[in-house]
Amino acid sequence: MTSEREFIDYLAQRFPLRPPVEVGIGDDGAVLHHKSSGRQTVVTDMLLDQVHFDLRTTSPELAGRKAIAVNLSDLAAMGCHPTSAYVSLAVPADILRQTPDFLKRLYDGMQPLTEQFQFTLAGGDTNSWHGPFAINVCLTGEPMGSQPILRSTAQPGDGIFVTGALGGSLASQRHLTFTPQLKEAEWLLRHIPIHSMMDISDGLAIDLHRLTEASRVSAVIDASRIPIHTDVSSQMAADQRLAAALSDGEDFVLLFTAPAKRVQSLHQQQALPFEIYHIGQVESGKDCFLRSYAGSVSRLAASGWQHPL
Amino acid sequence: MTSEREFIDYLAQRFPLRPPVEVGIGDDGAVLHHKSSGRQTVVTDMLLDQVHFDLRTTSPELAGRKAIAVNLSDLAAMGCHPTSAYVSLAVPADILRQTPDFLKRLYDGMQPLTEQFQFTLAGGDTNSWHGPFAINVCLTGEPMGSQPILRSTAQPGDGIFVTGALGGSLASQRHLTFTPQLKEAEWLLRHIPIHSMMDISDGLAIDLHRLTEASRVSAVIDASRIPIHTDVSSQMAADQRLAAALSDGEDFVLLFTAPAKRVQSLHQQQALPFEIYHIGQVESGKDCFLRSYAGSVSRLAASGWQHPL
Repeated sequence: MTSEREFIDYLAQRFPLRPPVEVGIGDDGAVLHHKSSGRQTVVTDMLLDQVHFDLRTTSPELAGRKAIAVNLSDLAAMGCHPTSAYVSLAVPADILRQTPDFLKRLYDGMQPLTEQFQFTLAGGDTNSWHGPFAINVCLTGEPMGSQPILRSTAQPGDGIFVTGALGGSLASQRHLTFTPQLKEAEWLLRHIPIHSMMDISDGLAIDLHRLTEASRVSAVIDASRIPIHTDVSSQMAADQRLAAALSDGEDFVLLFTAPAKRVQSLHQQQALPFEIYHIGQVESGKDCFLRSYAGSVSRLAASGWQHPL
Repeated sequence: MTSEREFIDYLAQRFPLRPPVEVGIGDDGAVLHHKSSGRQTVVTDMLLDQVHFDLRTTSPELAGRKAIAVNLSDLAAMGCHPTSAYVSLAVPADILRQTPDFLKRLYDGMQPLTEQFQFTLAGGDTNSWHGPFAINVCLTGEPMGSQPILRSTAQPGDGIFVTGALGGSLASQRHLTFTPQLKEAEWLLRHIPIHSMMDISDGLAIDLHRLTEASRVSAVIDASRIPIHTDVSSQMAADQRLAAALSDGEDFVLLFTAPAKRVQSLHQQQALPFEIYHIGQVESGKDCFLRSYAGSVSRLAASGWQHPL
């Protein structure tokens, strides 16, 4: 492909328009047509070479895939389906010279997710420069249920749940291949009165702090109930394994709160289509606490990835 | 500010929620509540240090301002008001260390535009890394009129118009301080049946090619009618001055097509609130042409900034 026009035509063919998108790539902006009043969600995440992946070992396909997947995980956490995606790129001039199919491979990595979850690549901005590779994705979404699910609406008495095992994601490269839990979010919303939800991106410990701060509540979680991923080495000491599950981050599973009894009765009624781990309890007050394997309760350190200031 | 939480609180106070935004910064995503059915526009632009500004000479305030302003210009070109903004940052760790108020100053540069055009900073993502500074902005907007204005709907017979003088924007630093033409777009939509519109970001010559390709039409513009900005040196030869107006880019004025007679009769009826220059004519066929000062017509080269592939 030798011209911008040809590349835009290629993308338009590879990423067909789906409602509510009416106008996609190629104009100053995209046009979405909402057929009724209602709520919409917008999420955005920027991924950087040597921070969120490493192009020396990560393929363009997996870098593109991850950039879309982490944003889909945010939408899942809001209880929303994706509707449209906007991809901005800063590409090193060297890469464009040395890997002429870099952009095509990047978008090839995104394409299966747009098919699987039925949304439109509707716009973006492509730049070259002498810095490292950076990609920003912005996604719009619409509620699966009547409205988006927030992290700020946890209630004292709620059980605290996670939808997958934690830890070891970066070391195992799982962070490049995980499936964003949109299907899980949809099932949860149909079966459980979810009070609050977010995804675990920076680590359970820090993300639980964020949820309780936003909701102005307290939380106690049980070390013995926290599911540790098989990606966390069994050679490690128990407290190191626990620390990995609490702080490694990039798990991209759902952390939610809901009446514990409703989840228990679901467990009794039917085989669940995926694991739901009951790891603790929301209480009134503030701060987060951890009940150790030995049974003592102490403050949970907000360990994990902190955004810079 | 020492914590992410404090910075988010600071931003939430500095950038109040405005409808349709119901939930802004601090959750996995923003929530917009549309009270009726209708169309919405999404635009995005990424700006890079040493490409779109130069932090050795550009203040953080002006870098932040420009990142918002170029996206507002895209919305103006779509005939849309802004509703919400999403700001993603890749900030060099060195800058955060050496200029502790860098982030605050960046947002200080954005804030007056959010007040002037009444929209909400509703989300984003802040990262540090060892690359240069990069900022991505995504904006949502709603049509000023009944629907967004596209670049793909120019009609043979339309006059071609620009809403400001062209050239010299980078050299004069006008690209850092221009006012996005939202008010102009609104006035135009109230007074003229606009057939197609876009903003001039990469240069009149290449942007006119984009408009005619999208609309599957041809265009002829007159060298003698093209308004050359006073920022273009009067010392330059006439053809160099014309080339600057055609190709410098970063003008961020509106390029639109509409029935020429409607604009002429407006000129006769009232003093216009801003300059509207009639520079040429849309015709059937393809490609763009330039009538020289001497009157000869030749193909218009698509000069200007080309996005890399």
